[in-house]
Amino acid sequence: MSDPFVVVGADAAGLSAASKFRREAPDSEVIVFEKGRWISYAYCGMPYFIEGRVERMSDLLSLSPSEVDERGIDLRRDHEVVAVDPDAKTVAVETADGDSLDQPYDALLVATGGRATTGPFDVRGIDGAFTLHHMDAAAAIDAYVAEPDAYDPARADVSAVDRERVERNAAMPAPETAAIVGGGYVGVETAEALVGRGLDVHLFQRSAHLLPPFGEAVGERVESALVEAGVTVHTGTPVDALVGDDRIEAVTFGGDGGDGAEDLPVDLAIVGVGIEPNTELLAGTGVGVGPGGAIRTDEYGRTSLPDVYAAGDCATARHTVTGAVAWMPLGLTANRAGRAIGATVAGDPSRVGDIAGTAVVKAFEMEAGRVGLVEDEAAREAGFDPVRETVTAGSRSGYYPGAAPTDVTLVADRDSERLLGGSIVGPDRAAIRIDTLATALDADMTLPEIERLDLAYAPPFSPVWDPVLVAAKVLNGTLDEE
Amino acid sequence: MSDPFVVVGADAAGLSAASKFRREAPDSEVIVFEKGRWISYAYCGMPYFIEGRVERMSDLLSLSPSEVDERGIDLRRDHEVVAVDPDAKTVAVETADGDSLDQPYDALLVATGGRATTGPFDVRGIDGAFTLHHMDAAAAIDAYVAEPDAYDPARADVSAVDRERVERNAAMPAPETAAIVGGGYVGVETAEALVGRGLDVHLFQRSAHLLPPFGEAVGERVESALVEAGVTVHTGTPVDALVGDDRIEAVTFGGDGGDGAEDLPVDLAIVGVGIEPNTELLAGTGVGVGPGGAIRTDEYGRTSLPDVYAAGDCATARHTVTGAVAWMPLGLTANRAGRAIGATVAGDPSRVGDIAGTAVVKAFEMEAGRVGLVEDEAAREAGFDPVRETVTAGSRSGYYPGAAPTDVTLVADRDSERLLGGSIVGPDRAAIRIDTLATALDADMTLPEIERLDLAYAPPFSPVWDPVLVAAKVLNGTLDEE
Repeated sequence: MSDPFVVVGADAAGLSAASKFRREAPDSEVIVFEKGRWISYAYCGMPYFIEGRVERMSDLLSLSPSEVDERGIDLRRDHEVVAVDPDAKTVAVETADGDSLDQPYDALLVATGGRATTGPFDVRGIDGAFTLHHMDAAAAIDAYVAEPDAYDPARADVSAVDRERVERNAAMPAPETAAIVGGGYVGVETAEALVGRGLDVHLFQRSAHLLPPFGEAVGERVESALVEAGVTVHTGTPVDALVGDDRIEAVTFGGDGGDGAEDLPVDLAIVGVGIEPNTELLAGTGVGVGPGGAIRTDEYGRTSLPDVYAAGDCATARHTVTGAVAWMPLGLTANRAGRAIGATVAGDPSRVGDIAGTAVVKAFEMEAGRVGLVEDEAAREAGFDPVRETVTAGSRSGYYPGAAPTDVTLVADRDSERLLGGSIVGPDRAAIRIDTLATALDADMTLPEIERLDLAYAPPFSPVWDPVLVAAKVLNGTLDEE
Repeated sequence: MSDPFVVVGADAAGLSAASKFRREAPDSEVIVFEKGRWISYAYCGMPYFIEGRVERMSDLLSLSPSEVDERGIDLRRDHEVVAVDPDAKTVAVETADGDSLDQPYDALLVATGGRATTGPFDVRGIDGAFTLHHMDAAAAIDAYVAEPDAYDPARADVSAVDRERVERNAAMPAPETAAIVGGGYVGVETAEALVGRGLDVHLFQRSAHLLPPFGEAVGERVESALVEAGVTVHTGTPVDALVGDDRIEAVTFGGDGGDGAEDLPVDLAIVGVGIEPNTELLAGTGVGVGPGGAIRTDEYGRTSLPDVYAAGDCATARHTVTGAVAWMPLGLTANRAGRAIGATVAGDPSRVGDIAGTAVVKAFEMEAGRVGLVEDEAAREAGFDPVRETVTAGSRSGYYPGAAPTDVTLVADRDSERLLGGSIVGPDRAAIRIDTLATALDADMTLPEIERLDLAYAPPFSPVWDPVLVAAKVLNGTLDEE
């Protein structure tokens, strides 16, 4: 290659690609531009930092800048890529110092990630109101939650952190009541975190159930677990507005634009209503886009622009079940696609892999997982005729202490009897069992095939008929009747 | 059908078949002959009863005789089937009262189970020496281990129990030192049970590693877990003899028939060196037999005799990976085959399913699983060219408390890159992860396909790259080099 491999964004996808590229092509150059100071941070770990279960913010960093350097990667922080010229094969870069430069590339990876959407809620300028989609926000929330005289500045022990923002939040009186707007997994995990910090927590979810992508069976049991732990859960309850000028004072809910609105006084509000892909960099290039406005990619992570790849939260991927392009921003997807693109650019064409939307979440002692097409609507949109069953089965032999009810939902296509998706929820090792279904989905297994799987049995770990097998038996019975 | 469906043996396979048959053909007759008084007991639960973790022996019974009766099954205990005439389609039955009768059948299921082998060790007539392969043995061991004045007769609260044997063992002085002969899963589980009862426990294993079918990586970590918990583990150490006339006094080991033998004084010895299938009933009928001398069956559980089926610990099944007949007596195999045969005899032909040898075991806080062809020798015998890697990876994100080293071994065929088998061991939810590999094996997945699986990630449950994916990456790297 004459020009370097250029990567935009130094988190999971970007650094996975650069690292793999250097291992495969140790004599070639790779430059990673990062517009800020943060690199390689674990977004998924932020609730556990706020909870205090993770002691230091630096624990959430996978790689330090010097470790990146040791891999032979030319990392340039405070360098924002502001434009791409796909014909000239150059990117325009602006530095924090006000310099600008044009960088030619042989191949380009756009790994710009995503950002929190806030819906109608503008958290800017209101103290005590936050989104949770960046390390600086996590550090600020952690500082804000602490009593001013009890805050340990060493918690946010990363040089990249916005120190001024942290100190300002640490100085404010500690909150007592929190509203979390949005009952997705960020909302659920943050509710647990704030209960762990001693707050009175209210969780608001617009639709009827928490964790909509996990389906109703999971939503109900997770809601029960949260309520049991002291969280006040408001399902079917849109929040209308955040109230407060300088500092958050209340959330208004239940008004639906008319009468009947109520105010809940709070001194902390966290908005977690979704994320959107950062695609502005390629605006105007004519690049193909897909669901959610994400950059459309093929099985090798290629965009519609020559030699331009995209990966991570800003990019689509192919769905395991439907075969269609889909946008599901998740951690493994980003790492896996980045690694594959790094290999491809180094000369070893590697597929990024399909995504099944496999996700797991913890809510206090409750664990849940989901994969594939869990909701009937999604299955119908993809041209399937979904049939579903939910069963409750023991997690262990009934006589072995710790056996706990585990709900398994399986969804199959009526004619082909193929598995389309499923969920598992329960307090005893339930989440990780979703990998069995993820593997079965990837292999296009039918329900009769799943029923005959030789799954593990031993009293401390599973009953003779694993909950997944029980669910398969019941769903096969339903399929046979029809 | 003119004559009934006759089942020999009232445990997992037999009662699963009879129950399924009655549900599918509620107007047809099924007779289950059981030579003794015990029915439907959980063999796998016996170590946990001895440990005291399970309070009552009755907890280990899945079905009572009256529940069997409610299902419309004609259960006849104390009825031993002593001969089969496959031409006349009758069985000869002798009752405990000395009566005898001939019973015609339309279809016959032989579900006679297995029994403990003792190798050169005759435990009969020696107090304090036991095998662990029947409920009466479990009740006797439990009584023997207790201090005479502390034994609670309600522990063995099942009418079928050999009360006289229990009382005799309860009256003996409690043992202090136990030798377990055989480091398979029965030996490992029993070691944990006896430590739980306060004994000084020695575990003897003839070969170099515990749990041979689980492979070396598992054997080593399980051995460490046992040692850490206070068990003295003697690997590579065959026991030569049990010493004692009326009561066990010692085990002799390390002599290998020559000098250098040592005596370990013990007052309890449990022999767990394997099981063998109960096939005597069909001796002389010319029935086909398979590995281990088990009754050979086809994909519907049919033997070579017309209308005679076999299932459970006395029967073979088809191996998922090799396609050959195999004998692996395990709980799910018995239940699943019984259920399928019940459906088939009722008129709905159902395959019994292949077996992958999926097994999991607990040793104190350590958990392990295995599936498929784990040992190179087994893979080569089946015509494969095995390549293997063992990796150690975290069970959770490194920053999340409770993350623990998890060893995954994967074995693949060099040319086809197909998965042949694997094992997983670690203290944090390791065992149940084997189901991912069991599912991948069943689907004939290759290592590149496994590396691209969309497995679950969330900090409390798995790192971004699940240990299975890490192992697949490493093994793919090895396969690519060659």
